[in-house]
Amino acid sequence: MAPLEIPKLAVGDRVQHELLVREREDKVTKAGDPFLTLKLGNATGVLGANVWKEMVPQVQGVRPGQVVQVIGVVEEYAGRRQLKLTAPPRVVPMGGADIEQFLPRITVPEERLWAKIDAWRAEMHGPLRRAVDLFFADESFRAEFARTPGATRGHHALVGGLLLHTCEVADIARASAQTMGGNVTLVTAGALLHDIGKTKTYTVDLAGFDYTRAGMLLQHIVLGSLMLEERLRTLPPQDQLSDEQRLELHHFIQSHHGQLEFGAAVRPMTLEAEILHFADNTSAKGNDFTEAVEDAELFPSAELEFSAKRSWRLERRVWKRSHRWD
Amino acid sequence: MAPLEIPKLAVGDRVQHELLVREREDKVTKAGDPFLTLKLGNATGVLGANVWKEMVPQVQGVRPGQVVQVIGVVEEYAGRRQLKLTAPPRVVPMGGADIEQFLPRITVPEERLWAKIDAWRAEMHGPLRRAVDLFFADESFRAEFARTPGATRGHHALVGGLLLHTCEVADIARASAQTMGGNVTLVTAGALLHDIGKTKTYTVDLAGFDYTRAGMLLQHIVLGSLMLEERLRTLPPQDQLSDEQRLELHHFIQSHHGQLEFGAAVRPMTLEAEILHFADNTSAKGNDFTEAVEDAELFPSAELEFSAKRSWRLERRVWKRSHRWD
Amino acid sequence: MAPLEIPKLAVGDRVQHELLVREREDKVTKAGDPFLTLKLGNATGVLGANVWKEMVPQVQGVRPGQVVQVIGVVEEYAGRRQLKLTAPPRVVPMGGADIEQFLPRITVPEERLWAKIDAWRAEMHGPLRRAVDLFFADESFRAEFARTPGATRGHHALVGGLLLHTCEVADIARASAQTMGGNVTLVTAGALLHDIGKTKTYTVDLAGFDYTRAGMLLQHIVLGSLMLEERLRTLPPQDQLSDEQRLELHHFIQSHHGQLEFGAAVRPMTLEAEILHFADNTSAKGNDFTEAVEDAELFPSAELEFSAKRSWRLERRVWKRSHRWD
Amino acid sequence: MAPLEIPKLAVGDRVQHELLVREREDKVTKAGDPFLTLKLGNATGVLGANVWKEMVPQVQGVRPGQVVQVIGVVEEYAGRRQLKLTAPPRVVPMGGADIEQFLPRITVPEERLWAKIDAWRAEMHGPLRRAVDLFFADESFRAEFARTPGATRGHHALVGGLLLHTCEVADIARASAQTMGGNVTLVTAGALLHDIGKTKTYTVDLAGFDYTRAGMLLQHIVLGSLMLEERLRTLPPQDQLSDEQRLELHHFIQSHHGQLEFGAAVRPMTLEAEILHFADNTSAKGNDFTEAVEDAELFPSAELEFSAKRSWRLERRVWKRSHRWD
Amino acid sequence: MAPLEIPKLAVGDRVQHELLVREREDKVTKAGDPFLTLKLGNATGVLGANVWKEMVPQVQGVRPGQVVQVIGVVEEYAGRRQLKLTAPPRVVPMGGADIEQFLPRITVPEERLWAKIDAWRAEMHGPLRRAVDLFFADESFRAEFARTPGATRGHHALVGGLLLHTCEVADIARASAQTMGGNVTLVTAGALLHDIGKTKTYTVDLAGFDYTRAGMLLQHIVLGSLMLEERLRTLPPQDQLSDEQRLELHHFIQSHHGQLEFGAAVRPMTLEAEILHFADNTSAKGNDFTEAVEDAELFPSAELEFSAKRSWRLERRVWKRSHRWD
Amino acid sequence: MAPLEIPKLAVGDRVQHELLVREREDKVTKAGDPFLTLKLGNATGVLGANVWKEMVPQVQGVRPGQVVQVIGVVEEYAGRRQLKLTAPPRVVPMGGADIEQFLPRITVPEERLWAKIDAWRAEMHGPLRRAVDLFFADESFRAEFARTPGATRGHHALVGGLLLHTCEVADIARASAQTMGGNVTLVTAGALLHDIGKTKTYTVDLAGFDYTRAGMLLQHIVLGSLMLEERLRTLPPQDQLSDEQRLELHHFIQSHHGQLEFGAAVRPMTLEAEILHFADNTSAKGNDFTEAVEDAELFPSAELEFSAKRSWRLERRVWKRSHRWD
Repeated sequence: MAPLEIPKLAVGDRVQHELLVREREDKVTKAGDPFLTLKLGNATGVLGANVWKEMVPQVQGVRPGQVVQVIGVVEEYAGRRQLKLTAPPRVVPMGGADIEQFLPRITVPEERLWAKIDAWRAEMHGPLRRAVDLFFADESFRAEFARTPGATRGHHALVGGLLLHTCEVADIARASAQTMGGNVTLVTAGALLHDIGKTKTYTVDLAGFDYTRAGMLLQHIVLGSLMLEERLRTLPPQDQLSDEQRLELHHFIQSHHGQLEFGAAVRPMTLEAEILHFADNTSAKGNDFTEAVEDAELFPSAELEFSAKRSWRLERRVWKRSHRWD
Repeated sequence: MAPLEIPKLAVGDRVQHELLVREREDKVTKAGDPFLTLKLGNATGVLGANVWKEMVPQVQGVRPGQVVQVIGVVEEYAGRRQLKLTAPPRVVPMGGADIEQFLPRITVPEERLWAKIDAWRAEMHGPLRRAVDLFFADESFRAEFARTPGATRGHHALVGGLLLHTCEVADIARASAQTMGGNVTLVTAGALLHDIGKTKTYTVDLAGFDYTRAGMLLQHIVLGSLMLEERLRTLPPQDQLSDEQRLELHHFIQSHHGQLEFGAAVRPMTLEAEILHFADNTSAKGNDFTEAVEDAELFPSAELEFSAKRSWRLERRVWKRSHRWD
Repeated sequence: MAPLEIPKLAVGDRVQHELLVREREDKVTKAGDPFLTLKLGNATGVLGANVWKEMVPQVQGVRPGQVVQVIGVVEEYAGRRQLKLTAPPRVVPMGGADIEQFLPRITVPEERLWAKIDAWRAEMHGPLRRAVDLFFADESFRAEFARTPGATRGHHALVGGLLLHTCEVADIARASAQTMGGNVTLVTAGALLHDIGKTKTYTVDLAGFDYTRAGMLLQHIVLGSLMLEERLRTLPPQDQLSDEQRLELHHFIQSHHGQLEFGAAVRPMTLEAEILHFADNTSAKGNDFTEAVEDAELFPSAELEFSAKRSWRLERRVWKRSHRWD
Repeated sequence: MAPLEIPKLAVGDRVQHELLVREREDKVTKAGDPFLTLKLGNATGVLGANVWKEMVPQVQGVRPGQVVQVIGVVEEYAGRRQLKLTAPPRVVPMGGADIEQFLPRITVPEERLWAKIDAWRAEMHGPLRRAVDLFFADESFRAEFARTPGATRGHHALVGGLLLHTCEVADIARASAQTMGGNVTLVTAGALLHDIGKTKTYTVDLAGFDYTRAGMLLQHIVLGSLMLEERLRTLPPQDQLSDEQRLELHHFIQSHHGQLEFGAAVRPMTLEAEILHFADNTSAKGNDFTEAVEDAELFPSAELEFSAKRSWRLERRVWKRSHRWD
Repeated sequence: MAPLEIPKLAVGDRVQHELLVREREDKVTKAGDPFLTLKLGNATGVLGANVWKEMVPQVQGVRPGQVVQVIGVVEEYAGRRQLKLTAPPRVVPMGGADIEQFLPRITVPEERLWAKIDAWRAEMHGPLRRAVDLFFADESFRAEFARTPGATRGHHALVGGLLLHTCEVADIARASAQTMGGNVTLVTAGALLHDIGKTKTYTVDLAGFDYTRAGMLLQHIVLGSLMLEERLRTLPPQDQLSDEQRLELHHFIQSHHGQLEFGAAVRPMTLEAEILHFADNTSAKGNDFTEAVEDAELFPSAELEFSAKRSWRLERRVWKRSHRWD
Repeated sequence: MAPLEIPKLAVGDRVQHELLVREREDKVTKAGDPFLTLKLGNATGVLGANVWKEMVPQVQGVRPGQVVQVIGVVEEYAGRRQLKLTAPPRVVPMGGADIEQFLPRITVPEERLWAKIDAWRAEMHGPLRRAVDLFFADESFRAEFARTPGATRGHHALVGGLLLHTCEVADIARASAQTMGGNVTLVTAGALLHDIGKTKTYTVDLAGFDYTRAGMLLQHIVLGSLMLEERLRTLPPQDQLSDEQRLELHHFIQSHHGQLEFGAAVRPMTLEAEILHFADNTSAKGNDFTEAVEDAELFPSAELEFSAKRSWRLERRVWKRSHRWD
């Protein structure tokens, strides 16, 4: 069965699908009656549901991280679509199911992003190509890379987020290098490799995204260099990178956060490393902005021009332009 | 007479040209004899000259900021080309002369940059086009803009530096907006306008670049908004921008330094303003890198792989890659 | 009908007046019954009221920002005076009413402050007088200035707060200039003009104080300079200020926050600008202290010598001296 | 013999006086000849002198910190008055001499400042008066206080500087307390006591101002509280301050630097302590400004409108207004 | 009656003891019924108890800071031991009772710590011994010192915490001085004296630990020097310390926080003062770690390897190692 | 020939030995004559020599980094011993010579330090021992480790400095762990491994200490983890560390700088990692102090009690205690 396309639901639509319980909050009405709110979602989006007093006993066992069979109808409540359950949700055992169909996911097709990466790889030659291919020509790495989020919360916290972020960084870094006289191919390789450590930093399961033990104790920058070093060592002797080349790739990884207080081991020491750093920031903060103007917590009402409070990711209030320029 | 092309001079070439005295330093040899070093330049570059004991009395009146008639021959000294004076330099009165031919200047042809700007303008319509044209369709503003440096010292401190920097920022911001789903035309207008205040912030004369009184007391960000407001007011009533549009253009100017401690009045509150901020940084720091690897103070010997000291502009040492990737 | 003088109410007084609903909080008693607390106020002060279970249904429609007709009697509850409603409050339509009588307001008579300002203006001559009079001799500006708060929350967040703060700053700056050998008249002009931008930064209505769009996007410092420039341009040619004079007035506005990280475009570069900066701080922080020792959230019980928690405005705990020195 | 009034000297005046050698710098002319520059001064000011090759052997023993008998005539050199020695300076033994007549000193008469302090004391009663009088009614403390500088270098680094600074702080704090509704008499006492520890922090001798051992190891804030505690203990039992009163006086001393990073042990917790802190800053920074515009290192030429470099005390460039407002 | 040994209680044990009410939290069940949770403790530890709807009216008067007679049985709830009350707790009047038996207390026997201190004192001679003995040979000081906590909340917030912390600091500082070639005996004296001011900074009563007025207004560092100075003055003339010695002891106290922003009046200027500073930090942060891994708020479930959130004391998440190394 | 023991030289001693030229400075006397100062040294210390006008031509080719044959006699000059050359120094070709005998070296015998390390290793068992022995049971690693300095300049910038620093850190960390209840053996392993990356970070040759390319681009913390990972991989399968064990060793390396802004990839998350961090600081800063009080630049005269200026390593002035405590 095709997954429910949540963004396309209209008031009155009937729903009978499996959805992931993302959040559950138990509350009491002003009249003293227990009720609870659920956030239910799949890869396409999230939908809220209020469970009133009568049905509360029947959802006692429902917890975040479970997949439930939901039967209901879409209604409007306080200006937003939500789900009215017409039957209690039923927990679905997830033994062999495809977990990722229930997790939030990027909306850009993965294939389009891989096509870009493969085209960029095709521009590369010699040692640079060999180094990049150690990861990006390896199907198992590609699979892992494509499911990793960009963060546990914050920018690109989606299945596929790392893949999308990497392509955005490469796009921006390439344009910057073109303009500033840098080495476009080299900075592309830097962009592809800069966050590889995140594949060993985050866990992806129905309970959401979290840190691995290695991610907690070492963070993705160190893990990236350990991964790079491990694979570089597998190259046959005649294909080994020179010392300078090897160190330059590590330097991209180690310096891409720009400053020590943001976790960089060193500050960027080349034009290309500096460009990569700014491209990384532009993708991350740009994504924070595009998500902020869609965020119902920041804009609880449709008339608001400025967010009702500060975005914790951007540490400032955000302007949702209401005028047009054309 | 065509200006001397300093970068093309070879050992043995004879020089008989007018050059600007950029620096003068009086010294004493280990043997106790007075001598002095001059830095002589024009728009194409700079050349050093040592003046020994015998000729010292004849250059007593020569000071930085003067144009002198120089006669000499190019020789090599300590691995660098320098000028051996064969006659004392003679000061040239600069009454009506074209000052700018003696000042350091960008190497990109100005026309190519204007062509880019005019093509970007052609993409714009309605109020955005009208606002941008208030400046960029005005010949006297264009002339002033084209001679202004990007700074008194530091990145783009060249005649034409502001023009070059503005184009770089626009290039990078456009690519970033394209990738991140922003309004490309709008961010281009923001890029064109973000530094207009610098035309009233810096002085350009033979003594070098300096601050105007307004530049010292208010800085270029405030001056930019005062200029924008002044010109916007000249639009006929039917062409006036809406309040939102007017404020958004000011917001680009006021937020482009990103953080208050770097002089922004406010932090960027839109995707486009955030993108402009990072593009501005990428152009500035990128230029710092391309100049650092050419800087004889940072790399006093050709064998150095790392700069001998920190670049004051980048606050770190810089790596001049000696290896090749192709 | 004269407004109710809230600070003078005694236990047992009867109240039958129109009051503004400042806050409403819905709660549940330990016994599970719904109740709610209201904060009701006018220009003279604020009074709390608890609405118990029985009356809750009758106040369902009452919301902050509404004016209500209140009938009740003053009683004591937990050591504080509060209102016991004897009838449900009734919402009053506010079409043409005088909004400001319901908003929190400074207690100093406005006239006394204007008298000070006008006496200071009388000391000024020539261009300084002309510049100051562009604002302070304009009745419509005076009216707007007198109703603007000093902030949306924090120091001087009252109708008239900007007027009071401006007079305090001028008082302190004048004494400082007198002591330190500065120009007393000039610093007075700086004080009068330093916060004029706030008239375009804040909105004043029954829902409380908030930011205008211009205030959010540009902040009051930039708006102040735009306003100053606009009015200066209206002076007849023979009355124009010199370039130095014009820039010095802008410099007061742009530097009065002292440091870039607090929003100044430049640091103060003259004795008078530095004095203005410290006088501004003294007024703001001094007001924070006088309000803190009156704040029931900081001093929830009368015996407390030290505030129960940090004041968010002062970022520290505050001492309410219990001893006497005389 | 009355001391030479250095600020009143005119070109051509003959000098035959004892002066303190403030600085000596040995140099070599461009022609390779040794020469040296002296800075000679007394309480009224400083005068430079160049000693040329011929007289160099006769001044070999002259060193900073010595008093010398000087014979010469005032001449003009590079736009500044300086002394032309007509005989070699002769070192004067300083056994019992009055050292202070040779040190830089405030120009305000000391008596005028004491009159202010004594008038303020007369306003005080009871424990406050007793505490203040423990210091300011003690002749030996007054003598020590009157000769102490405000700092070893920086603001008020003059004999009498502490006395002048204390009066400035009290003046400004009183006006601020008047305006903000604080206790004027109490804040005056705080001002008088806040820097008493400086009398044990600095040394004053012909070699200039320096730190005592206690000043280096503990700084003036701790020393102030130790001194206050020591004297308070000498009060007879019936005159003892209450615990609150005693702690409040210590709190003024301990909090007057405002923030921990500037050496305060605690942040100000009362209106009066906060006011004292800002008054202290206003006096210190105000003095930095009045000295900066007179400083020949910052303004090496009379035409300069902006200082040629940053003032290290103010960490910024300074504007010397060239226009008039009247 | 011996106090109840809370850490040794097993499920099923009966409790009939006096315990201190540490916390009380009133809540409502999902079904709308009131209930409350108590934290009850004595010197050996803390035990939770839930009071359900039926018994709520009988505990209305029970508040934190009271000692109550408790009757109940130990049961298991959500994986943790807690107390099931079988009768309502009864408030015990605390007139002359020994308060400290109810407060949280260090588990190391006090005697063992005093034995260490006395052995260290025995190593000292001459002025160092005399200075240390002014405090540590004084029974009333010892009693006060032994009951003072190390902080009101945070590291060593226990009766006896100051004593334990002081011994830890001395232990670490001695080892460091031994290794780095410092004066072991001197640094021991510095360790013993560094926090003496805390005895006048904190209050200890059944309501928990809090600040004294002097502690709020001056903090423990200043108070320490005032105490030291007061006692040093009592030495007979022939036993007085030299000026250097006296200042060095004060310097230990004033510099032990290392940096001004953490409350030090001066930075450490000797090897021994620097060592003391790091030893102080090691004890404080080390204690934060040992308490963090035992903290049920940080590790709400036994399977957690990383704390569920940041420790506010350490400002980071903490790893509870689950593996073994032996 | 045994190396010259520089610290034992007395005035009048004859010198005829090979010494390394550490520094050369060319100067001109006041009389205009050229002269130069040399600093000559070996592993035991450094000695200055002035070369006067007559001998200057004969030392033209002498440069820092060369070993020269020196003939002269020890004399006293300005209160310090220095060398009077009686013959021009002769450059010695250094083809196969033992470079390290000429470099500054720790004074503690290397053997004593290795004995400590080997005793600590003997305490370890199982995986911890295996991991440590991968480095410290490898003779070639030991040789490299023993010649590496602790830094290029600053603390422990000596041949053997890394070995000494490592032992100091282990000593202090062991005592701290003992006191705070940590795992002593584990923290010892952390101490031994924390700086292994420095062996690949610094170069050691006659020109002094410098950075390797890898050291510049990645710094020692990353290099340490790369080295650890590389060697761990060589363990036979049955001897492999568990994932937790492996990550904990990396965590020691990555967190030992304590805070991100000082280069740590993560903050310490265990008691042992925190202890290691403070022990590292104590050794580094303690060494700064012991060297500061011996530093002739900080204490140019023997009477000084406080350093004449700030130590750049400690960022403060230093007190050289002149009194005794025993």
